[in-house]
Amino acid sequence: MNKDKQIEELVTPIRDDLTSGAAELALQGIKFYRTLLSDIPHDEKPEAVKKVLVQASKALVKAHPAMAPIFHLANDVLLATRDAKSASDVMRLADEALTKFETRLCESASAIADHVYDLIPAGELVFAYSFSSTVVSSLLHARSQRKFFRAVCSEARPSQEGRKLAAMLASNGMEVIHTFDSAMGLILPQCRVAFMGCDCVGRPGIVNKVGSWLLALACRELGIPLYALAGTEKFVSDDRCFEFEDYERPGKEVWPEAPSGVRILNKQYELIPFSWLAGLVTEHGILQEKDIEKYVSKLETHEALALEGALIG
Amino acid sequence: MNKDKQIEELVTPIRDDLTSGAAELALQGIKFYRTLLSDIPHDEKPEAVKKVLVQASKALVKAHPAMAPIFHLANDVLLATRDAKSASDVMRLADEALTKFETRLCESASAIADHVYDLIPAGELVFAYSFSSTVVSSLLHARSQRKFFRAVCSEARPSQEGRKLAAMLASNGMEVIHTFDSAMGLILPQCRVAFMGCDCVGRPGIVNKVGSWLLALACRELGIPLYALAGTEKFVSDDRCFEFEDYERPGKEVWPEAPSGVRILNKQYELIPFSWLAGLVTEHGILQEKDIEKYVSKLETHEALALEGALIG
Repeated sequence: MNKDKQIEELVTPIRDDLTSGAAELALQGIKFYRTLLSDIPHDEKPEAVKKVLVQASKALVKAHPAMAPIFHLANDVLLATRDAKSASDVMRLADEALTKFETRLCESASAIADHVYDLIPAGELVFAYSFSSTVVSSLLHARSQRKFFRAVCSEARPSQEGRKLAAMLASNGMEVIHTFDSAMGLILPQCRVAFMGCDCVGRPGIVNKVGSWLLALACRELGIPLYALAGTEKFVSDDRCFEFEDYERPGKEVWPEAPSGVRILNKQYELIPFSWLAGLVTEHGILQEKDIEKYVSKLETHEALALEGALIG
Repeated sequence: MNKDKQIEELVTPIRDDLTSGAAELALQGIKFYRTLLSDIPHDEKPEAVKKVLVQASKALVKAHPAMAPIFHLANDVLLATRDAKSASDVMRLADEALTKFETRLCESASAIADHVYDLIPAGELVFAYSFSSTVVSSLLHARSQRKFFRAVCSEARPSQEGRKLAAMLASNGMEVIHTFDSAMGLILPQCRVAFMGCDCVGRPGIVNKVGSWLLALACRELGIPLYALAGTEKFVSDDRCFEFEDYERPGKEVWPEAPSGVRILNKQYELIPFSWLAGLVTEHGILQEKDIEKYVSKLETHEALALEGALIG
């Protein structure tokens, strides 16, 4: 059973999606597994199905190495099916893992929205950075609960997923102020609170879209509380926290026709010190740096997804 | 003598030029006056010529209210011609003022480049923000003096004059690394020094392109010396220092087809506290905050260019 071509075809749109947040892409990952498993005969050998799952999981993780929910989705599917004895078992257990993960994502987002409601000061300007489905659902939830406020966001160059955020909030009736990223310093002093999603949380800090470091620094300088919103499916071990460092996109996404002699740097993620945040809003409440340890220490990694040269916990 | 139409035609390309620095636009302002004066008959009444100069000067200052060299150029022309008794006198004195200003700009740039040479650590990465002809000439001067270093710059959204900077440095044989503005936090830790031009210097601080505040904050956080380069033709009185605040560009320059409900903020300038800089490099050497006073207190403003509601010094 050779599924190479199908895996590549299914993973390509996920890899090329530069404007969706990590939780949103994990939902696309769930569809990816379901499509892949849908046409496997039930009399297939279990080891062959597991091999497809390993191959699919590696491809999915490689598509967005900084996005923890994608890693955990892949990891959960592999761990759940590791001891299955038949093809039907593999597929049933994989399906259960996918459903469980989907439920977890939705319940996290809902619980986070409840916590965020209390953090939004009525009548004020609220800054939101990049694109995060968790941030969107939290802001729209607060609005639906009749809390009035205006949202401020910036482009998030080069993919400009900030435009997606602005359009989505505006189409739901929220007043939005939009500007370019470097104008954060002009508009932040008028904001009372700032929110961002994140791709990954670990002991070394929070990994998020480039620009988050400047945002966090400016918020600290101006005394504006900045919260990262993340379900615990974003938590990773220390080594995986730095996977984002190798992730560089083509320079032409920044400057399509750069002259010769100009090298384009197009990194996507950066690490923000936990101490610069007012807190991490999770489904278990608002966590501080000291709380991270207990979630990180419980994580188990399937051997197929272990990092090269890293110790498997 | 009605020159309204000609003034508007000549000032439009200057007003629409969003990628040139203040010193460069002042040079274009000199050409603007020369073209305007070239066809005035020598038997014209002196008051009529002065009226044209006042009108032209107001239009020029209004085109870029944050750019001090443009204000000083206009102010110098008006002060020089104030007491002229004939049309020929007005034109001779205006021409002398223009030549003097041009010489001053060139000599400032040259003296600044000499000071900057000593600030560039050989073999290192040097950050440069936005576009400033003074920064370009200083970096190219250092390179021509056989000091090897690489330049790092960012786009400077929305006009992206950072691309102009990158292209100009690269076309002169310099290795350039270019990225988007919010990635400053990723590349600055590898830089040893940072330079920016500025539009205006006053006791309240330095006015420069939006993004400079974040750059200065990041440099302070990372311990990277940031120098603003500015001839003393950039110095203004306290009131004029805030002229930039009213200057807002059309939102469509940031997002051409923004959906309804999204308000675009497209401010161009911001104020950076002097204390965040390592120094201001002028033709008189590297100045600190305490040195600004003596240059500011000497400034005289022609009554036609006085700000409404402001006291004329």
